[in-house]
Amino acid sequence: MKFIIQRDRLVHSVQEVMKAVSSRTTIPILTGIKMVATEDGLTLTGSDSDISIESFLPTEEDGTEIVEIQQSGSVVLQARFFSEIVKKLPRDIVEIELATNHLVIIRSGKAEFNLNGLDAEEYPHLPQISEENMFKVPTDLLKTMVRQTVFAVSTSETRPILTGVNWRLENGELICIATDSHRLALRKAKIDTENQETYSVVIPGKSLNELSKILDDTNDLVDIVITENQVLFKAKNLLFFSRLLDGNYPDTSRLIPTESKTDIIVNTKEFLQAIDRASLLAKEARNNVVKFSTLTDGMIEISSNSPEIGKVSEEIQTEEVRGEELKISFSAKYVMDALKALEGTEIQVNFTGAMRPFIIRNTSDDTILQLILPVRTY
Amino acid sequence: MKFIIQRDRLVHSVQEVMKAVSSRTTIPILTGIKMVATEDGLTLTGSDSDISIESFLPTEEDGTEIVEIQQSGSVVLQARFFSEIVKKLPRDIVEIELATNHLVIIRSGKAEFNLNGLDAEEYPHLPQISEENMFKVPTDLLKTMVRQTVFAVSTSETRPILTGVNWRLENGELICIATDSHRLALRKAKIDTENQETYSVVIPGKSLNELSKILDDTNDLVDIVITENQVLFKAKNLLFFSRLLDGNYPDTSRLIPTESKTDIIVNTKEFLQAIDRASLLAKEARNNVVKFSTLTDGMIEISSNSPEIGKVSEEIQTEEVRGEELKISFSAKYVMDALKALEGTEIQVNFTGAMRPFIIRNTSDDTILQLILPVRTY
Repeated sequence: MKFIIQRDRLVHSVQEVMKAVSSRTTIPILTGIKMVATEDGLTLTGSDSDISIESFLPTEEDGTEIVEIQQSGSVVLQARFFSEIVKKLPRDIVEIELATNHLVIIRSGKAEFNLNGLDAEEYPHLPQISEENMFKVPTDLLKTMVRQTVFAVSTSETRPILTGVNWRLENGELICIATDSHRLALRKAKIDTENQETYSVVIPGKSLNELSKILDDTNDLVDIVITENQVLFKAKNLLFFSRLLDGNYPDTSRLIPTESKTDIIVNTKEFLQAIDRASLLAKEARNNVVKFSTLTDGMIEISSNSPEIGKVSEEIQTEEVRGEELKISFSAKYVMDALKALEGTEIQVNFTGAMRPFIIRNTSDDTILQLILPVRTY
Repeated sequence: MKFIIQRDRLVHSVQEVMKAVSSRTTIPILTGIKMVATEDGLTLTGSDSDISIESFLPTEEDGTEIVEIQQSGSVVLQARFFSEIVKKLPRDIVEIELATNHLVIIRSGKAEFNLNGLDAEEYPHLPQISEENMFKVPTDLLKTMVRQTVFAVSTSETRPILTGVNWRLENGELICIATDSHRLALRKAKIDTENQETYSVVIPGKSLNELSKILDDTNDLVDIVITENQVLFKAKNLLFFSRLLDGNYPDTSRLIPTESKTDIIVNTKEFLQAIDRASLLAKEARNNVVKFSTLTDGMIEISSNSPEIGKVSEEIQTEEVRGEELKISFSAKYVMDALKALEGTEIQVNFTGAMRPFIIRNTSDDTILQLILPVRTY
């Protein structure tokens, strides 16, 4: 193996595959990055067995030479050292050569590194995925759908299935649902699909977070292929594999109330900032809980009380308060997370009494819904 | 106590005094910020007993009203909560009022905080410092002198005196010296002083770091007052007190070689970056040590070898290599720290053999000197 490559492109690809490499793996070779040079270009692979990322550097792109393959071959290099080294090389051009005994020579300017590599044959094979069940989502929509749901997954391993986001494809619509059993985030969108199959899979929240970081903000289509235990996201020169979570995702549809008793419409930012301020004193006390009350004349009050430190209250003028009077307590963090996930300047909140879950959504958009369980304090 | 104040100015002053507030103090009231309102303005104080910072907000500055004192008085508020609250207040104007029992009411827009305060009489008094022994240093020079020396203080409490920087004032010259006994940084400058007294004090490195962060990048003069056990820095509307370290600072003058056997002149950035690259592989092995060798034709080589991972070597074309051939090993970190502290594109290194300390300095500036002890490996 011998090739000459543009340093910045190599650095970029190494950083992409590094997102899958963990230093805490039970399989030592997975602390490495696999490099395979063929006449088409250079392929880098990183994996922690849950997530695998493959980044491809073609020999040429838009008429510019990116990598000149002088001899094909493959090797695995320690990810941590290799990634730090390529970032700090002195020149724009790097030469990488495989010598005997998996020794790799990296040259740039007058610097020469000799790194001990491993046999690429020892590196685990990526899942083989047949591309029958494929659908396409624009990158920016995909990232938005992840952002608006993934924060609500459970961080506890008590019910492992809840650490993932449920992706359901039915009737040409993709529905993403996450819940940690105290709150739920749901986002749906119409998407392009070639067949009318129905799926329901659960993708680990961690995988979706890493995927989101690695994808550029474009509207290029990402191909998504779902199999029994893997999902594959295919973007330009990039493959992102994640295992799926085993088990049945709970049916969340009956959690979502269809009626309400008190409804408010309020400016998103004012509501969010008032809760943020009230939560400053609530952090010390029980679980970051703030109180919400309807007042007269379309006013609401957000308050919190922490006997040792002090108390805070703030009134907000809403657009509208309709229905019954209400006093309710909730986790400031959960409501703030939900409000940050929503777009638009105004939101509506639909309450069904102080002990029942309430719904936050945009006034002008029914593709996203945030549900939160109150905290019993009154 | 009652006053109305511009939020941004209050936030700025609170952040200044917060630099002295520690959450790990044995004196509970020092977790608070003292506020004193007089007809002249508002004074905030934070202290961890080693460092004390006083920030003054005048009623008016450049014709703009900053704080309107409606009633004078004083109180101590929990620093952590108070600083978070003022940052997040909804309006540009804040009203702060002391009610009974040290309860403080903070109002901004429709938000109202009630915070439990403490009696300001319980707060320790700041040191009383007579201003006899004063000298003046421009802020930017002061920050530079700190930056170029403070990194070399010892982080170990084995010899507490070495955790500080020795400041000596003699013959109208200020000399700052720091050493952790493996390396030494020295910077001197001519300064304005009203009398011809000579001082030698040791200022804790931590104090100088905090001072540097709090001072703006101006060339306004800072008044420096030295007493037996305190130093006071006076900038505009700001007092910064630090205790001094007890004990005699070692005489470092005889450490600095006056002759040399091998001298090089080299581009600072090329030398720094080559050492940085070589250190990538040296981190794992013994103490981050890299090797330096003179070659022929004005070339030098930086190398490092870590049997498990690999090796690296790099040649650099110097401006000049003069004197004996040399192979020497040193801590990459110490040399990189020293190089970063130097200004200018070229530096000279003067060696006196592989077992003797060497000196790095600018080719065109003798006010700064960095000395480093080699590591015995050859």
